[in-house]
Amino acid sequence: MDVKNYMQQVGQAARAAARDVARASTGAKNDALLAMAAAIRQRSAELLAANVADVDEARANGLEAAMIDRLTLTTKSIEAMAQGLEQVATLPDPVGEITDMKRRPSGIQVGKMRVPLGVVGIIYEARPNVTADAAALCLKSGNAAILRGGKEAIRANQAIAACVREGLKAAGLPETAVQVIETTDREAVGHLIAMPEYVDVIVPRGGKGLIERISKDARVPVIKHLDGNCHVYIDTDADPVKAMRIVENSKTQRYGTCNTAESLLIAKSVAGDQLPAIARMLAGHGVEIRGCSETCRLVPAAKEATSEDYATEYLGPIISCKVVADVDAAMEHIARYSSAHTESIVTENYTTAMRFLREVDSASVMVNASTRFADGFEYGLGAEIGISTDKFHARGPVGLEGLTSQKWIVLGNGEVRS
Amino acid sequence: MDVKNYMQQVGQAARAAARDVARASTGAKNDALLAMAAAIRQRSAELLAANVADVDEARANGLEAAMIDRLTLTTKSIEAMAQGLEQVATLPDPVGEITDMKRRPSGIQVGKMRVPLGVVGIIYEARPNVTADAAALCLKSGNAAILRGGKEAIRANQAIAACVREGLKAAGLPETAVQVIETTDREAVGHLIAMPEYVDVIVPRGGKGLIERISKDARVPVIKHLDGNCHVYIDTDADPVKAMRIVENSKTQRYGTCNTAESLLIAKSVAGDQLPAIARMLAGHGVEIRGCSETCRLVPAAKEATSEDYATEYLGPIISCKVVADVDAAMEHIARYSSAHTESIVTENYTTAMRFLREVDSASVMVNASTRFADGFEYGLGAEIGISTDKFHARGPVGLEGLTSQKWIVLGNGEVRS
Repeated sequence: MDVKNYMQQVGQAARAAARDVARASTGAKNDALLAMAAAIRQRSAELLAANVADVDEARANGLEAAMIDRLTLTTKSIEAMAQGLEQVATLPDPVGEITDMKRRPSGIQVGKMRVPLGVVGIIYEARPNVTADAAALCLKSGNAAILRGGKEAIRANQAIAACVREGLKAAGLPETAVQVIETTDREAVGHLIAMPEYVDVIVPRGGKGLIERISKDARVPVIKHLDGNCHVYIDTDADPVKAMRIVENSKTQRYGTCNTAESLLIAKSVAGDQLPAIARMLAGHGVEIRGCSETCRLVPAAKEATSEDYATEYLGPIISCKVVADVDAAMEHIARYSSAHTESIVTENYTTAMRFLREVDSASVMVNASTRFADGFEYGLGAEIGISTDKFHARGPVGLEGLTSQKWIVLGNGEVRS
Repeated sequence: MDVKNYMQQVGQAARAAARDVARASTGAKNDALLAMAAAIRQRSAELLAANVADVDEARANGLEAAMIDRLTLTTKSIEAMAQGLEQVATLPDPVGEITDMKRRPSGIQVGKMRVPLGVVGIIYEARPNVTADAAALCLKSGNAAILRGGKEAIRANQAIAACVREGLKAAGLPETAVQVIETTDREAVGHLIAMPEYVDVIVPRGGKGLIERISKDARVPVIKHLDGNCHVYIDTDADPVKAMRIVENSKTQRYGTCNTAESLLIAKSVAGDQLPAIARMLAGHGVEIRGCSETCRLVPAAKEATSEDYATEYLGPIISCKVVADVDAAMEHIARYSSAHTESIVTENYTTAMRFLREVDSASVMVNASTRFADGFEYGLGAEIGISTDKFHARGPVGLEGLTSQKWIVLGNGEVRS
């Protein structure tokens, strides 16, 4: 197979379909989503069979257990996929929304209309459910999509792609509006991220290594985050009950997610009172503490932290800890070490809270709440294609709106400029 | 001079100043702007003397008359510079603005806060007034700025820079918040656009050649437009009086601006009635028409247009013209040839107008208005740092808001995720 030629054809077809999808009615897009869900339910035996073949091959190739787990489809996960499509159909359509209209002295009315980005490329690992999820979000936001899943999931992805095409066809939309790449050749990814004439944006979903490689080589904008080195700062005016609850939830509710707290900062004035109890709570969850010298003095079980520790996203039962002078020192530490994903302050002091909100430059900044809330569903976006730590375009959880742009519209009555 | 080392120092100083400027109060920023204006008025003799030396050297080097004209300062243009600074002080401060707050079922309140981008690099030609203008917009939007003007204006730019520093100092802000590059070495530009650790965005202002070079080599985001190939489409349901007025203003009010119409499309059903009169109006302004065969049949003075003509931004008294079947053919032509800057339809038909607004994918889309309105002041932004034809971040006229981003903020009362 000539991969370059194949990708060019996929790109051309996506660009051509993008104009049709951009102007599709909300009704047609929702009809397609519901028909996709119906096809997935109807063909669930085919999906399972394709997935069994994928899983068998992955096992034979020695894929690790956690990845096999994410690769495996069940009757239950197929039903969840269908329900996910139906749920996206219930979300408001962002495309064509007009906002901020105002009349100008010249007589014209000026405002903004929300529009699709065009063609979205999604690159992800061996998780077949992402195929249905990404197809739904791109379609609802009026974009054409090119999906490239992990090679281990190729059979299930193609089976899901057939259901997606069936849904598009049923609603009178072009079947090329969502294309799932048919080759497992890695060269396809290299072409996908270097076709600015056909692809408007890339959303990589997966490990840091994958995302770094894509960001480095991409010739189109990439919506992404690399690290989630999130902080909780317990201020001198913190409510100790809230502080305990927020640290516990931010660190221990799930270890592997990007919005999990990886670092605890605590004001010197309250560290002696609160840190030993917090350390006991963390020890109860089996969380190791790596701290500054003052931390180690207050918590004898803690290990000494290195500068490297403060920059690390552990994604596991370890937390770095530092006793700081005040909110200024906490913000200095965050400016130096944070990955700008999510930071939370625990305080009852209004002015300190407002300063932290205003001055901390991360995608999400919180007062008295768990960092675990940094999520598209929790923020009310209805769905999430990813989280961005970039300042441009989409920042923080990215939902349907992050897959759109805005244009200016002018409504006149024959006005000319003088 | 070690230009690389110098630019690194400028970058570091800007990054350090950016945090102070980001949290500066509106009052401090406005005080600085007013003090800059006062300094410019007070030192106007120095500015004029520096500029005379610049102009003398430029003349000796054979700079063309139009560029000498833009380079030259007068008592009047210095007063306009001071008034421009005062005007930016009157604009609302975008930084810290909180919008879209909503309560979620978990109890948290989620919304967005507007924040500066960080460090903005502006690269422009030999127009000293841009130095004051760009400094003001970056400061008001809470950003640190690194300004690089054309080498011919170096003396006047440094004199203006001294006034800017005086204003910053008077308001207690770091003088490094706005730095005007002191070397005329072209190598400085290469470093400025390739320091993502110190510079967050580049705004190039100038000719297409300059912007193409910068976009090609930049390692940070660039806010820009390359071409303004703007269209006016006269629909079958157009009011002929509005059509005449809008074509005249869009094409002939100024020839050299990016929002000037470069191409006229007209529905076949009305071309016979309206095109000859429009051609006479254009001929009266000395505008040459290059058209399709149907245009040439209706307007014997017209020249035959090539495909190249339809893709050209003339920036002069020439317009390309095509007779099209209907609004669909007009939108096809625009999708193919437009630079996605600004397009306007003239029609009295509601459904046709709505289709054009929705389906044309340009930064500004208008109904019954002159393309010349695509401008930050006309849209009510108060000021303009440039116009963008990119879909990401800022699109269309870019004012203070285009120099900012948003972060999510969460206000909680001890909520945790379940």
